[in-house]
Amino acid sequence: MKVGGKHYTTIWPNADGRAVDVIDQRWLPHEFRVATLRKLSEFATAIREMWVRGAPLIGVTAAYGVAWQMAEDPSDAALDDARNVLHATRPTAINLRWALDLMRNHLRNLPPEKRAQAAYAKAAEIARLDIETNKAIGANGLEIIRGIAAGKKPGEPVNILTHCNAGWLATVDYGTATAPIFLAADAGIPVHVYVDETRPRNQGAHLTAWEMVAHGVPHTLIVDNAGGHLMQAGRVDMVLVGTDRTTASGDVCNKIGTYLKALAAADNAIPFYVALPTSTIDWTIADGLREIPIEERNGDEVSLVWGKTADGTITRVRISPEETPDANPAFDVTPARLVTALITERGVVPASREGLAPLAPERGA
Amino acid sequence: MKVGGKHYTTIWPNADGRAVDVIDQRWLPHEFRVATLRKLSEFATAIREMWVRGAPLIGVTAAYGVAWQMAEDPSDAALDDARNVLHATRPTAINLRWALDLMRNHLRNLPPEKRAQAAYAKAAEIARLDIETNKAIGANGLEIIRGIAAGKKPGEPVNILTHCNAGWLATVDYGTATAPIFLAADAGIPVHVYVDETRPRNQGAHLTAWEMVAHGVPHTLIVDNAGGHLMQAGRVDMVLVGTDRTTASGDVCNKIGTYLKALAAADNAIPFYVALPTSTIDWTIADGLREIPIEERNGDEVSLVWGKTADGTITRVRISPEETPDANPAFDVTPARLVTALITERGVVPASREGLAPLAPERGA
Repeated sequence: MKVGGKHYTTIWPNADGRAVDVIDQRWLPHEFRVATLRKLSEFATAIREMWVRGAPLIGVTAAYGVAWQMAEDPSDAALDDARNVLHATRPTAINLRWALDLMRNHLRNLPPEKRAQAAYAKAAEIARLDIETNKAIGANGLEIIRGIAAGKKPGEPVNILTHCNAGWLATVDYGTATAPIFLAADAGIPVHVYVDETRPRNQGAHLTAWEMVAHGVPHTLIVDNAGGHLMQAGRVDMVLVGTDRTTASGDVCNKIGTYLKALAAADNAIPFYVALPTSTIDWTIADGLREIPIEERNGDEVSLVWGKTADGTITRVRISPEETPDANPAFDVTPARLVTALITERGVVPASREGLAPLAPERGA
Repeated sequence: MKVGGKHYTTIWPNADGRAVDVIDQRWLPHEFRVATLRKLSEFATAIREMWVRGAPLIGVTAAYGVAWQMAEDPSDAALDDARNVLHATRPTAINLRWALDLMRNHLRNLPPEKRAQAAYAKAAEIARLDIETNKAIGANGLEIIRGIAAGKKPGEPVNILTHCNAGWLATVDYGTATAPIFLAADAGIPVHVYVDETRPRNQGAHLTAWEMVAHGVPHTLIVDNAGGHLMQAGRVDMVLVGTDRTTASGDVCNKIGTYLKALAAADNAIPFYVALPTSTIDWTIADGLREIPIEERNGDEVSLVWGKTADGTITRVRISPEETPDANPAFDVTPARLVTALITERGVVPASREGLAPLAPERGA
């Protein structure tokens, strides 16, 4: 997507043919910084310290980390070492392990002298596949936006409410929930995005709002409390969010607060869509509410808010009494009954066992 | 309620018999400061700059402001002047005008030499009536909490979720939504309060959490997004909120985000109660969604968050890109169908035209 009129992805090979450049997302939205990764330890730090974040982007960064290491030392020992160092950065990230295993399996049967080139090529392929998947999600979602636009007066925007950041910063490009929005904007369909700030970590205010500014998409930041009123007032045409995990029955686990927006959408007969790559469907789980464990994160995320002071200092401020305890569940589950449809790279399907069945791996294309 | 083991109200006559002391709420929860008001202009500033806030407390502060002025100068001109200066502080606050009119009507037919004493007595009476109303709301709500506690194992707390601050800091003492909670805690019923932070102004994190700390009520701060998940997980027994305006048909206008919690409560079969003095029922309005105008406040409240840095500085931080516009609707309307019952000083009634009818002024006690 665009930043200041120039096309960027979140990660790309440096001009030197060895190092890798990434957008250092820790400083967004206040500063746009690019970091060049030139050591295995720098790739590890970039993932662990969340210079890069989002499952797809973490996987691609790790793949490039392996490639870097192969250019340094293509031995079996170095390959194992790269895998172990990078895997330890965020051990629960399934996509990270998937990318590292893919790289190792691809490289270990090659002679060492061919590994570096093959590794850079494979990392680039993983990145390209991510972009293709997201573009396909975008193309499928675009038709939904186009349909809503067709019912509007000429020039009247389609108002889309989104929660958290399922944007291009979490992927290599396009994002998942944002892909239909960017494609619609690029196609000249008037869109306007209500961006939930998404407390406690404010990914909406920090990242989604920044993406919209950078690519030039009309948008408005709102507090998470406001969406229900906007829907009651007829100011939202559709809700479009991402998901971390979707069950085989269509229950959607996503950032905390998503469920509240789904309830409000249902109460006001506004369509509620979830965009996802089919790789994030968990076919082993049927009942999302009973079976998906919800991560409880550090309460400091609730009581301390990160931002920039008037003099430009980037810091945290405490909003509550020191003595007050916090609870910080990070995700919630939206039951399938509240989801209008799932937008995947393989088509738009109902959020139900029957709707998802054609996408199951054993029956997949 | 208690602060550091000592009983406080939000406003009280100074020991000198002339000045009036208030809790200067601008610094909460980070600092507990008491301000002494010794000039008409200081009473006006305290209201305008929100040293004191909340409709009942604003009214009482204005009444004491008139009393102060009568002690300075009991002339008709000074009485009119006090009324005008104080009314201009927050011109849309209905309670402010009500208190000022009450004071003027009470005083203007008295001889000037009797006005000061009569004014202090009347202001004290308004304060006492507020406390009595809130205690009656509390006693009625206490029975609901007691009923839920009866179904629990011994010692297991009643978990109450609240939104915004309908606490004693908005009144003279007890608060409205908090009155049943404080009375339950004082009666030895185990309660635990989930405090919504209540973006954008964070009245929950700043004020309700501070009240709970100060009075020693077990509580946990959560982001506004978390309540739905907690209800799905069976961690909330009742929702209890205040209201700025209730229609004759039982629709409830309250702080933005209240509607989302009401939807989640209904979806999880959790009772949703609203506590209010009957004086805030607007008998002229039937359809809250169509007829209550929603105040749109300054977007800075969304993009700037107020708090305390690690070095103790109290400041604001920006959380979003400078280029991102904000929308900031301050209230929403919860339809009567989502409200289990209204807790008033005159009893607990269904949120419906039939339920409210016995409380209407023309039929009132």
